[in-house]
Amino acid sequence: MRISLSVALFVLLLPAGAQASQAASAAVDAAAVERVVGRLRAEEQASQGAYQRLAWLCDRIGHRLSGSPGAAAAVGWALETMRRDGLKEVRAEKVMVPHWVRGTAEITLLAPVARPLAGLALGMSVPTPPEGVEGEVIEVDSMEALESLGEKARGRVVLFNKAIWRDPNGEGYGQVSPLRHAGPSQAARQGAVATLIRSLGTLPGRLTHTGTLSYADDAPRVPAAAIAQEDADLLHRLLASGEKVRVRLRLDCRTLPDAESANAVGEWRGRERPEEIVVLGAHLDSWDVGTGAHDDGAGVVMALESIRLLKTLGLRPRRTIRAVLFMNEENGVRGGKAYAADHAAELSRHVAALEADRGAGRPLGFSVGAGPGGADAVRRLAQGLAAIGATEIVENGEGGVDISRLRPAGVPLLGLRSDMTSYFDWHHSEADTLDKIDRAALVDNVVAMAAIAWALAEMDPPLPRQP
Amino acid sequence: MRISLSVALFVLLLPAGAQASQAASAAVDAAAVERVVGRLRAEEQASQGAYQRLAWLCDRIGHRLSGSPGAAAAVGWALETMRRDGLKEVRAEKVMVPHWVRGTAEITLLAPVARPLAGLALGMSVPTPPEGVEGEVIEVDSMEALESLGEKARGRVVLFNKAIWRDPNGEGYGQVSPLRHAGPSQAARQGAVATLIRSLGTLPGRLTHTGTLSYADDAPRVPAAAIAQEDADLLHRLLASGEKVRVRLRLDCRTLPDAESANAVGEWRGRERPEEIVVLGAHLDSWDVGTGAHDDGAGVVMALESIRLLKTLGLRPRRTIRAVLFMNEENGVRGGKAYAADHAAELSRHVAALEADRGAGRPLGFSVGAGPGGADAVRRLAQGLAAIGATEIVENGEGGVDISRLRPAGVPLLGLRSDMTSYFDWHHSEADTLDKIDRAALVDNVVAMAAIAWALAEMDPPLPRQP
Repeated sequence: MRISLSVALFVLLLPAGAQASQAASAAVDAAAVERVVGRLRAEEQASQGAYQRLAWLCDRIGHRLSGSPGAAAAVGWALETMRRDGLKEVRAEKVMVPHWVRGTAEITLLAPVARPLAGLALGMSVPTPPEGVEGEVIEVDSMEALESLGEKARGRVVLFNKAIWRDPNGEGYGQVSPLRHAGPSQAARQGAVATLIRSLGTLPGRLTHTGTLSYADDAPRVPAAAIAQEDADLLHRLLASGEKVRVRLRLDCRTLPDAESANAVGEWRGRERPEEIVVLGAHLDSWDVGTGAHDDGAGVVMALESIRLLKTLGLRPRRTIRAVLFMNEENGVRGGKAYAADHAAELSRHVAALEADRGAGRPLGFSVGAGPGGADAVRRLAQGLAAIGATEIVENGEGGVDISRLRPAGVPLLGLRSDMTSYFDWHHSEADTLDKIDRAALVDNVVAMAAIAWALAEMDPPLPRQP
Repeated sequence: MRISLSVALFVLLLPAGAQASQAASAAVDAAAVERVVGRLRAEEQASQGAYQRLAWLCDRIGHRLSGSPGAAAAVGWALETMRRDGLKEVRAEKVMVPHWVRGTAEITLLAPVARPLAGLALGMSVPTPPEGVEGEVIEVDSMEALESLGEKARGRVVLFNKAIWRDPNGEGYGQVSPLRHAGPSQAARQGAVATLIRSLGTLPGRLTHTGTLSYADDAPRVPAAAIAQEDADLLHRLLASGEKVRVRLRLDCRTLPDAESANAVGEWRGRERPEEIVVLGAHLDSWDVGTGAHDDGAGVVMALESIRLLKTLGLRPRRTIRAVLFMNEENGVRGGKAYAADHAAELSRHVAALEADRGAGRPLGFSVGAGPGGADAVRRLAQGLAAIGATEIVENGEGGVDISRLRPAGVPLLGLRSDMTSYFDWHHSEADTLDKIDRAALVDNVVAMAAIAWALAEMDPPLPRQP
């Protein structure tokens, strides 16, 4: 607070015209970003504001699946935090969300030995009848392998058993998660009575990792659950012995009528072109296991703290920075869709959107989806982040799940690329809790997001729009 | 099998006298151990016998807490395996064991926020009343800190919150586990209504690690449970905020009348002094979570496989090697006590006992408790294990929990020192399953145990007895 106070005094002592001209005349280049980074980092290291906020979100509010009391509390907390930080136009923007309730999952190995398996329903799964669904297990490791089974899947419980692996970009998850999304419906098309999937996680701790499935309209809806990697290995070994392996699933999850929820939105008005907007995004909802510390509590506090830091340091850019904390990224993306629809008229004035939804591993750089030259422009700016190592630019048009809905309007989309090497150890599991947060890495993520947000809101011209 | 067959043919082709004199004349030194090691390793790498046996024990029998059906099945399997291997005097030696049944544990944070905590009753805990036991949490990290609380513990739930750490010798567990054993009774003496302990584990996977407590006769018996390290951290943070933290425990564990069980014993008679005995020990029981792959299924198969390998290779030593698979190491040591009592008359003819109960990390060497010069003698022999790295000797009189009961009779006691760096990631938890076994390390543990067992049974004179 010492630093921020002195900065505030310095800014206050300047005549208003001097402030504006000083800022207006400064080139937005790597050197400018580097100067901003130094100030942001010192302030965040001293205040630990992001960590303190994340601690409250995780410890006091806890998990926050769409439609849950935790989600409602998180919206309230986000709005209150924005108001306390002095943001303007703070509001809850209504979003109707799926309201899925987990209930209990009982996955039992019946033969060749009887044993409970560690399992969790996949999000949006239909329940089983109270007596459960039983079947002989048939194992595949890809959609192609499933399809090649043809009628052999009929009456079976299909086990999707493909391990993911640790890497900085989550490529394992990216490659295997389509099995979780689309596997149940494809299995159902081939007559399967239920599906199991090896948890998409990388920690050998008998953890179960949930996540959503996506039922297709043209297939029966069969119950689907994830089992621990240890249990998938057990089924694999038993199948390898040539014996028949039978399991029973009992799931009493339910999908209630859609619930009213909201995106939490607030902004810091730009000093010259307040009608032009840079969105800082993350998602407020989490899965209903653990407390969503990495996914995506970290992103939420990065977005909030980025604006608080810039305000505290008097780094007010030309354009408006708007925090949009989306609801329902996990099982419907209703918040992302609603924002794109409700703000359609002003998307042409959205000069960029930057989402943080890869946890709080150390920042590596950014993904950038923009018009010609846009990625290079960000690459040059990011050289100013060399002190925190966040210089690596990847060209990718999506930015993040929530903001990807802005792509058709041509909005340049950026994603904060945090190192995901350990992210899937905990992601979507009971172990995604505050203790997994590396404070120093969280600081550097905030700094990276704030510095690039400042540059995006300050630079002239803005990034070229997506084609 | 190719190797063992050729060896068997070679031995068969020698006249009986030549076999005996050749063996009798061979010095038991590091060079001899080294030759044995090479043969043992090749055979075990080819057969994977220990792994195959462990897979059966874990996957088909599963966990095996004293008094459980799994424990009974494990005794039967062990006896059958010994008979199949051609051991003699194969028998179940009756042991009456504590019969504790876990039931369910519901640990709930009540204030300042309401949330379920991940918890497991400690082994041998008394239950709570059906409505549970509630109290304000008070946190300590040592027995001294507890004692210094004095009356402040009255009416409270004492949280023992001391993290252990990863190291090759399990020193963290060794230092902190006395809190689990003795903490509940000391807290009860000071008026506590229940105790919680941070799980004695090292994997950040919201795992709960059980283990036994030891109620003192002079203290009330209060219910005691372990909670996940994440949940201990949460309570710590909430307490640090200065607020009152309340929890409720509901445990419906029960202690039934003692059950009849057994140590499984079988032996391979020595060629010259069959009345002299080297015991190879491990414990058949496990906790009732996971499948006891490392603790101590690994030790069980090491002991069994050591004898099978030596037999297969025709390496019959002077003295008898006896496998003793103890029951009830985890919560009573009744098997260890019974063996010492039942065999008191022949303990003077027990020339050594070697236990494997540190999991199946790579073998580092041995602990040795023997008379003067004994540890040095083993150190010299273990130089023959350089190829597998198991050369490090630590002087320690206990060997292992089960065989430690043989110490008063002066029996030289050895422990196989497997690397415990990752052992407490899984120990006493749902994650102690077969997939955690490194096959190459398991082979080398078997080789280390078999080679030293051979040397102990062959060497003349035997190790000096403990004072």
